[in-house]
Amino acid sequence: MGQARLTEEEVSARSRDLPGWSIEDGKLVRAFQFEDFIAAFSFMTRVALCAEQRNHHPEWENVYNSVTIRLTSHDAGGLSERDFELAAAINAAVPS
Amino acid sequence: MGQARLTEEEVSARSRDLPGWSIEDGKLVRAFQFEDFIAAFSFMTRVALCAEQRNHHPEWENVYNSVTIRLTSHDAGGLSERDFELAAAINAAVPS
Amino acid sequence: MGQARLTEEEVSARSRDLPGWSIEDGKLVRAFQFEDFIAAFSFMTRVALCAEQRNHHPEWENVYNSVTIRLTSHDAGGLSERDFELAAAINAAVPS
Amino acid sequence: MGQARLTEEEVSARSRDLPGWSIEDGKLVRAFQFEDFIAAFSFMTRVALCAEQRNHHPEWENVYNSVTIRLTSHDAGGLSERDFELAAAINAAVPS
Repeated sequence: MGQARLTEEEVSARSRDLPGWSIEDGKLVRAFQFEDFIAAFSFMTRVALCAEQRNHHPEWENVYNSVTIRLTSHDAGGLSERDFELAAAINAAVPS
Repeated sequence: MGQARLTEEEVSARSRDLPGWSIEDGKLVRAFQFEDFIAAFSFMTRVALCAEQRNHHPEWENVYNSVTIRLTSHDAGGLSERDFELAAAINAAVPS
Repeated sequence: MGQARLTEEEVSARSRDLPGWSIEDGKLVRAFQFEDFIAAFSFMTRVALCAEQRNHHPEWENVYNSVTIRLTSHDAGGLSERDFELAAAINAAVPS
Repeated sequence: MGQARLTEEEVSARSRDLPGWSIEDGKLVRAFQFEDFIAAFSFMTRVALCAEQRNHHPEWENVYNSVTIRLTSHDAGGLSERDFELAAAINAAVPS
């Protein structure tokens, strides 16, 4: 089930498939840099739509061209499968 | 000045540098196809920010993964330099 | 089931609870006017998130401060319950 | 000029006309609560468009239905007129 808290071993294993993210304070974290605010905010809109589609939302902050995203599952008390699924969807949304 | 209506010759010359757009009913028109609605709408957000930045706005429609954009300068009674500038910014925003 | 095509009687009955919308060419249609482009596009973002949440998307167009939305269910070959649900969510999103 | 750093007296005077904001660490700060993520993010889109229009951008964070905005003028080394103008535009964007 998506909401179950993953064990440390599961988190380590899943993290290997997820370039760019690290674990900080028990959350999945990645910082992104864009060309300007317009590129940053249109990326955020894409992430917002992905989040709403899954009913699983990020903790995030934006300063001009930088966006930092933190993922956790409050109802699971830690990281769940849903965090890794949203992180993978976010990685797929990064302009190459 | 940006708002002056371009002559037919100027429109032809400017169009050569603008891949993907055509002239229909005196407007600059381009249709875009994306992977899904999420990709289409995040592109639209980028265009919306580019438009607001320039205070020059598109006529556009969206159906799921397709977006059609029409540009004209109502105050100039036709196409102006501002339409070509916005079209170039939109082209730069298309994910490659 | 949400995708079943509603009969004409069902459409009439459901329409009575839905202020502002009319039936045109078999689609649910409503036009909105806002103060400016910024208000129009932030409303569109709200509708886009509602649409993605339901996996049911509008046909819509925007010109500066005006937005026209058309709803239909292609898979049902006409109007379904999902169109009325999205229309009600859109009405709830209109700033009063 | 908009970029000049305001004195403490000017900041105090301007703050009186700006309900909801406080000064923290020399920045203008306001926290907002919305009904849900959809309402929060469509508000953020409105703020993003206001920011791009002015070429003056917030530092902000979002967790589900809450948005915290911090304003400062890095080029002025503190608060400038532009922060108060953006804050007033943000207040005007809050749904009543």
